[in-house]
Amino acid sequence: MSSVKDLGERKIIKLILNCLDKMPNMPIPFGDDASAIDMGHDKLAVINTDMLVRKTDVPRTMSLWQAARKTVIMNISDLAAKGAQPLALLASIGLPPNLTKEDIVQISKGLNAGAREYNAYIVGGDTNEASDIIISCTAVGVCNRTNLIKRSGAKPGDFVGVTGSFGKTASGLKILMDSLSGFDSQGVLVDSVLMPIARVKEGIALAQSQVTTAAIDSSDGLAWSLHELSQVNNVGFYIDNLPIAPEVEMFADVHGFDPIELALYGGEEYELLVTIKPMCWQKAKSAVESVGGILTKIGLVSKEKHLLMHSNEKTVSIDPRGWEHFKTE
Amino acid sequence: MSSVKDLGERKIIKLILNCLDKMPNMPIPFGDDASAIDMGHDKLAVINTDMLVRKTDVPRTMSLWQAARKTVIMNISDLAAKGAQPLALLASIGLPPNLTKEDIVQISKGLNAGAREYNAYIVGGDTNEASDIIISCTAVGVCNRTNLIKRSGAKPGDFVGVTGSFGKTASGLKILMDSLSGFDSQGVLVDSVLMPIARVKEGIALAQSQVTTAAIDSSDGLAWSLHELSQVNNVGFYIDNLPIAPEVEMFADVHGFDPIELALYGGEEYELLVTIKPMCWQKAKSAVESVGGILTKIGLVSKEKHLLMHSNEKTVSIDPRGWEHFKTE
Repeated sequence: MSSVKDLGERKIIKLILNCLDKMPNMPIPFGDDASAIDMGHDKLAVINTDMLVRKTDVPRTMSLWQAARKTVIMNISDLAAKGAQPLALLASIGLPPNLTKEDIVQISKGLNAGAREYNAYIVGGDTNEASDIIISCTAVGVCNRTNLIKRSGAKPGDFVGVTGSFGKTASGLKILMDSLSGFDSQGVLVDSVLMPIARVKEGIALAQSQVTTAAIDSSDGLAWSLHELSQVNNVGFYIDNLPIAPEVEMFADVHGFDPIELALYGGEEYELLVTIKPMCWQKAKSAVESVGGILTKIGLVSKEKHLLMHSNEKTVSIDPRGWEHFKTE
Repeated sequence: MSSVKDLGERKIIKLILNCLDKMPNMPIPFGDDASAIDMGHDKLAVINTDMLVRKTDVPRTMSLWQAARKTVIMNISDLAAKGAQPLALLASIGLPPNLTKEDIVQISKGLNAGAREYNAYIVGGDTNEASDIIISCTAVGVCNRTNLIKRSGAKPGDFVGVTGSFGKTASGLKILMDSLSGFDSQGVLVDSVLMPIARVKEGIALAQSQVTTAAIDSSDGLAWSLHELSQVNNVGFYIDNLPIAPEVEMFADVHGFDPIELALYGGEEYELLVTIKPMCWQKAKSAVESVGGILTKIGLVSKEKHLLMHSNEKTVSIDPRGWEHFKTE
């Protein structure tokens, strides 16, 4: 019989969803970045949970403070993709018996720091015995129902935008995992792994502008996020302006990697990928810029359900692949 | 330096809380059964998280379906203690690589069954690689701010009530752990461990009756719950009618255990322990009975901060001890 390692994360999620009764009139359907619960008076509680397991999710050079903070960011990023303001988080923590008092303090301070960066608070949690450090967070945010951005809603002709550049975390992970060094800008790349940033103010600005037709965070990689939006919306994407971070171009050049590969197929990169009504691009861009963010047009939504990229005078296919748990060994 | 196993769960929780900024105007303070977020218009989102780790929390005879269902019940019980209606749950699951497809189906169906029993739904979650099965749930419920019951609020003279009898899970765990058998009613005791019940309708009825001054669930044992209420409210308790389940009396008699010990110091028993304005006892009792539950008066809140019990013509102290993670080996 198939086991977890044969199935891979995406088949496992399908298997689980098939066993669950669906809540009627869910404001956000299953399989989106976050879930929502109608609280009446046009208010939605937007909620999301994400677990970090030290053994599989934490590079050796990442401190416990950073790992705990990152768990908060992972959760908050999913709220950002819905345009929800994070308010509070719960943290359920599994602790091995030999962990020190100082380790616990570092985890707690990391959780607090992550929450406070986004004006949220840790309001509760649970502690448990476990054989490895497990940090499971749930973020709760709030959003007006009329402003909520879902994964569905993209239409052919919509502009495609992103809130930052790509490839930094894939490069940073390579530096950490393969101990690559001797490269000037490697701090930026490593920091993108150790100290990720969630695009909360950008997500809220986009939601309030009411011109965003669909959004997803790029935590499984840009290519996979495009694929997900393509599947949900039954559309395709034509990307003609892949924003590769300059440090990634340099890193790829020095170490002989393909920068496009690094930018498309990495993961744990918490940018927002959004589709915008074409007539309203400037409004969306201004909204994001007004809160200190950037919104870069990278292409168009197409009627044909393909993922294409134009680069170096060639049009190539983007593979529907990205970060997946259980299948990464 | 002290480690997790020297500190014990309660000191660990204090350590964590000291590292966290407190959310201003929290509707429910830190350290209560659940947390709450103000959603405006007198509505609170009541949230709680609880993690189950197979190795430490699941008896060998408990199926994965039962373990998953129990995780939901643990979470929902904390909402019940606040008088909140559970609406939705998120489940973050850690899965070992060798787990089978059927195991995942059983976990998923158990989660769904637990939620549906209380009219709630699983609306989202996360899957992860882990070396043991980890099920971390977050329950989200809703409650009018005016109806919310907290741990604080008990006054000397208040009546003390419980929603059921005690000692079943402590006895059931002994049967499962020590393979005790040959006892007629052992099914009831074992079932209390494998198929726990949360007192949701009782909690909501008590909240709506607006005569409950404080409440807690008895998941760490009745004695510990009394101790917690005593600490938070700066009051004591005089218990004169400890409702020991008849099956527990029989079990204790056959195997030579002290039934009072089983009833006071067990854990994972999801009854509600409440304090009620003395003039309104009948109103509270009728409210619980109107939804098919029971409310038994077990004693009084006292001004003196002691935990006393009158039984067999003797008055004895109740020790402030109960179930605690990390210290149970």
